Amino acid sequence: MTTDTRPKDLALTVRLGRTDVVIRGIAKGSGMIHPNMATMLAFIAADASIRAPALRRLVSAGVKDTFNMITVDGDTSTSDMVAVMANGAAGGAPIQANSAEEKKFGAALLDLMRGLAVELARDGEGATKLIEVRVAGARNEADARAAARAVTTSNLVKTAVFGCDANWGRLAAALGNSSAQFDPENVAIKILGVTVMRRGLPVAYDEPTLQSEMKRLDRVVFEVHLGAGQAKAVAWGSDLGYDYIKINADYRT
Amino acid sequence: MTTDTRPKDLALTVRLGRTDVVIRGIAKGSGMIHPNMATMLAFIAADASIRAPALRRLVSAGVKDTFNMITVDGDTSTSDMVAVMANGAAGGAPIQANSAEEKKFGAALLDLMRGLAVELARDGEGATKLIEVRVAGARNEADARAAARAVTTSNLVKTAVFGCDANWGRLAAALGNSSAQFDPENVAIKILGVTVMRRGLPVAYDEPTLQSEMKRLDRVVFEVHLGAGQAKAVAWGSDLGYDYIKINADYRT
Repeated sequence: MTTDTRPKDLALTVRLGRTDVVIRGIAKGSGMIHPNMATMLAFIAADASIRAPALRRLVSAGVKDTFNMITVDGDTSTSDMVAVMANGAAGGAPIQANSAEEKKFGAALLDLMRGLAVELARDGEGATKLIEVRVAGARNEADARAAARAVTTSNLVKTAVFGCDANWGRLAAALGNSSAQFDPENVAIKILGVTVMRRGLPVAYDEPTLQSEMKRLDRVVFEVHLGAGQAKAVAWGSDLGYDYIKINADYRT
Repeated sequence: MTTDTRPKDLALTVRLGRTDVVIRGIAKGSGMIHPNMATMLAFIAADASIRAPALRRLVSAGVKDTFNMITVDGDTSTSDMVAVMANGAAGGAPIQANSAEEKKFGAALLDLMRGLAVELARDGEGATKLIEVRVAGARNEADARAAARAVTTSNLVKTAVFGCDANWGRLAAALGNSSAQFDPENVAIKILGVTVMRRGLPVAYDEPTLQSEMKRLDRVVFEVHLGAGQAKAVAWGSDLGYDYIKINADYRT
């Protein structure tokens, strides 16, 4: 049984020298996607000419910031795959290691992987909204990732998003529940660009307007600054509503 | 706003020498109870005569296996308290350290604390069933606790219980997602006393009967043997159904 509600299919073109290279990918998966991939498949093909070790390096780096930063329900499994193939059919010279072309191709590949990963989270079981958490000011990268993922994994944050509530309290509680180290008095939080917390204290904002915006949009962006350093990370997840329960409790009936 | 649906109030009597001692406790809390107490209050009073250091030792030991082993939604907060008072009004000599009386009083206090903790989990936000996870055969106590808590914290296990599905797969996946170390090929699982997995493999069982039992009962007991050692732990949690979403998404309306 699949619980995906739609295909995830992306393509883009990148110009390398005088050659237009096409990268195209498809992915599936909508539950048990945590903490690193799990219960998802992605197949990406490019007609670029690139050697296997270089491609492998680009894919590994890309997975870390894309497929490994999504979650649906925090549950996990053992089966996953991201396969990337490049056959050189576009012609042109092979992409050289550490060249401008490699950088450009890598950036395009990363864009495509991020696009597919985000679509997986957006189509999470029962989801009505995509949650995007951008953490900055973390002590180090591990902290930034942990903080961002603690927010996307919190049932209370997920139900607040489903209910279109700009609930900074639940968000702050989720950050505090992460392994990230920071001083609560330095934390700033924005919801859809609106500052709701500064230096660890709530800030007055136009709540009805923000709530309407949350209702109107199918993506809610949280920006968190931990005030503890320079590291950043972005995580994506889905909200938690009635349909998640329906899919995961009533599937036998 | 409180989301408790009923009072949690327990009392019991224990005979120490020629004196009947009464222990009585009340507790509140129904969400954000994780990982150690959090968003809960418990007040326990006894008319026993016991010195503060001894009482403190019994309470600390008791909390570890009771209030620190419950969860509702895996979310956390910073506010909690378990206060235990003993005023000696029952009369009799003070309970001596390491005496039979201390042991008896400690066991009674533990029973009462466990009773209150279980009632908190049973009345978790939107809960229809209590989940009790008994882990045995763990390498050490930390592993036993981690394994038991991974099951009570899994959204997929919780929705399966809400849907009355004897889903050993989700249970095994949650164990694998814990920090506990064990060999999957040694794992045995019982649901309501019925063996559903032995040596890591599913066992044929009467599924309709087990499903009816899960529907009939308001408590579902999972017994897990990890086959990795001698350590044990018990954790309690609540299922995840439509009312949890209602309480945590629609509270503004």
